[in-house]
Amino acid sequence: MKAPPARLILASPEDVEAAFYEAIARGDLEGLMALWAEDEEIVCVLPDGRRLAGATAIRERWRALFAANPRIVVRVSLPVRWNSGLLAVHHVVETFHSPDDPEAKSHVLATKVFQRGADGWRLLAHHASAAAELPDGDDDGAPRVSRRVLH
Amino acid sequence: MKAPPARLILASPEDVEAAFYEAIARGDLEGLMALWAEDEEIVCVLPDGRRLAGATAIRERWRALFAANPRIVVRVSLPVRWNSGLLAVHHVVETFHSPDDPEAKSHVLATKVFQRGADGWRLLAHHASAAAELPDGDDDGAPRVSRRVLH
Repeated sequence: MKAPPARLILASPEDVEAAFYEAIARGDLEGLMALWAEDEEIVCVLPDGRRLAGATAIRERWRALFAANPRIVVRVSLPVRWNSGLLAVHHVVETFHSPDDPEAKSHVLATKVFQRGADGWRLLAHHASAAAELPDGDDDGAPRVSRRVLH
Repeated sequence: MKAPPARLILASPEDVEAAFYEAIARGDLEGLMALWAEDEEIVCVLPDGRRLAGATAIRERWRALFAANPRIVVRVSLPVRWNSGLLAVHHVVETFHSPDDPEAKSHVLATKVFQRGADGWRLLAHHASAAAELPDGDDDGAPRVSRRVLH
C-alpha cells in the first residue's frame, strides 16, 4: 500500500512566511504552491502589476519566474504584523539581491494575508509592489533586519 | 458645557471602505484620517511606492494629494474579501477617473486591512500599486462593478 502524502502543518503565519521565502530561494514551485489556501479565493500581485487570481494563474507565473531566475535571494525587514487567531496580515520590506552582484539590489513592499484552517496557516494573498526609495534604517545592518533566506 | 465629539461607529469593513472612497471623493482629510485605527501600527502604500508608517506620515501625504488633486474619482471593482470577525482584508481594483476627461483613467490594485475595536471597524493598512493591465471584465459594465463613489 502506498502511504498517503504527509500533511503539511504550518503552526503560525510566521512559519508560512519563512517557508515562502525558503521555497523562493530553492526555486521550489511545489513547495511554494503548497503554502496557499485551498477552497478559497487567492490573489497574488507581483511588482509587474498583474493581478493573478486563483492557483492556476499563480502557479504559471511563478513557474515562469523560477525558470527565468533560478536563484532569487530575498531579505525581509521592517515587519508589521497583525493576527486575530484566524486571519493574519504581515507587511514587510523585501530586498532582492542578485547572486552574481551583492551590490545590486531592489526593494519591494509586500503585504501577505494568512488564514488558519485544518492544517494550520496558509496564504490567501500576496501583494508586492516596487518600493520607491530605501526605507529608513533598512540598509544599516541593524539587528531588526532578519535574514530569512540567506542560510 | 461643550458636548464631547460624536464617536464615529463603523459597523463593518465595508462601511470603512465606502467611507474611505467617499472621503477621497470629497477631498476630506479629517474624514479620511478618522478611519484609521488608533493605538496601532498603521501603514499606507500608494502607487508612488513610498511606505508611509504612522498617522503623521499618512496625513501629510494625503494632505499633499488632496491639495494637488481636489477631485479624485475612484470606482471599485473585482472585490475579494476575507473577514474573521476581528480582522478583515479586502483586495480590489481601483479605477481612477479624471473629472475633466471621462476617457482618461488608470487602474490600481489595492489591499486594505481592517480591525474591529471599541468603535467598530478601522483601517490598519492600505497597500495600493499600479495595475499593469486592465483586469478581465473590469471595463465591460458588468454588474459586479460597484460604483462606490460616483453618486
